[in-house]
Amino acid sequence: MKLKLIIALALGAVTTAAVAGDVEDQIRFRQSAYSFLGWNTAKIKAQAADHPETFNKDQVIAAANAVAAVANSGLLSLYGPGTDKGTGWKATRLKPEFFEKQDEVKEIEATFIKEANELQKVAANGDAAEVKAQFGKVGATCKSCHDLIRVRE
Amino acid sequence: MKLKLIIALALGAVTTAAVAGDVEDQIRFRQSAYSFLGWNTAKIKAQAADHPETFNKDQVIAAANAVAAVANSGLLSLYGPGTDKGTGWKATRLKPEFFEKQDEVKEIEATFIKEANELQKVAANGDAAEVKAQFGKVGATCKSCHDLIRVRE
Repeated sequence: MKLKLIIALALGAVTTAAVAGDVEDQIRFRQSAYSFLGWNTAKIKAQAADHPETFNKDQVIAAANAVAAVANSGLLSLYGPGTDKGTGWKATRLKPEFFEKQDEVKEIEATFIKEANELQKVAANGDAAEVKAQFGKVGATCKSCHDLIRVRE
Repeated sequence: MKLKLIIALALGAVTTAAVAGDVEDQIRFRQSAYSFLGWNTAKIKAQAADHPETFNKDQVIAAANAVAAVANSGLLSLYGPGTDKGTGWKATRLKPEFFEKQDEVKEIEATFIKEANELQKVAANGDAAEVKAQFGKVGATCKSCHDLIRVRE
């Protein structure tokens, strides 16, 4: 590997860490990302599943874009050492086991990204039933991660 | 207007309001959206402006997609009556004048969406200098809204 590239990658890692911030910043940013995600998934659920008579293609596309944007935002950079304890907007619910389950976590993240990107494509077609079906697959990836590394409330 | 369409629109408005939630939910969702936005703009600022040697095209594209997704998410549905007072994750900083300045607010939102969509396009080209220039335009729309309707800290 060329020295210049090594330095650039090292600086990149430092910059990413600096942007993610300290433990409380990381927790607050990820809580914000998931809350923004939750608002947008609630819009899709309402329009594609619970009240299909209110289905609005443009709003569902915008919400699906938001879900995909969160999925692809590099969330795992907000799970630095020590972030299983601490308070962002509120106390984190991350289990300490998170750090020992990196293979499973990364696999779930990859699936989340794949299914969210697919939701974005399906939403563009404007078919409520297709959106509902794909939305179910995205929700399943959320649940798989919650079951693995989030403390139950 | 056909009755069916009127009913669908009315239901849509009800559904949107229900998803946005009560005053505290609306404030929390918008604080989350802006915090998620802030994390992503910080990534772009770090890579395109402050440390261009760390510029990573894929990360900047992902961050620009996130900025555009927030801009297009229908943020104004989170500014219902009474949301100039109350606490989401923290006390809101929205000025009561917000409700009397709807023309200016909607104009700023339209500009924010336009500039964020343009940032998304520019990011796809992968030119750090172009990203930095367009990022400045997005930042200017943020500031114009803060100056208009947000209490200074």
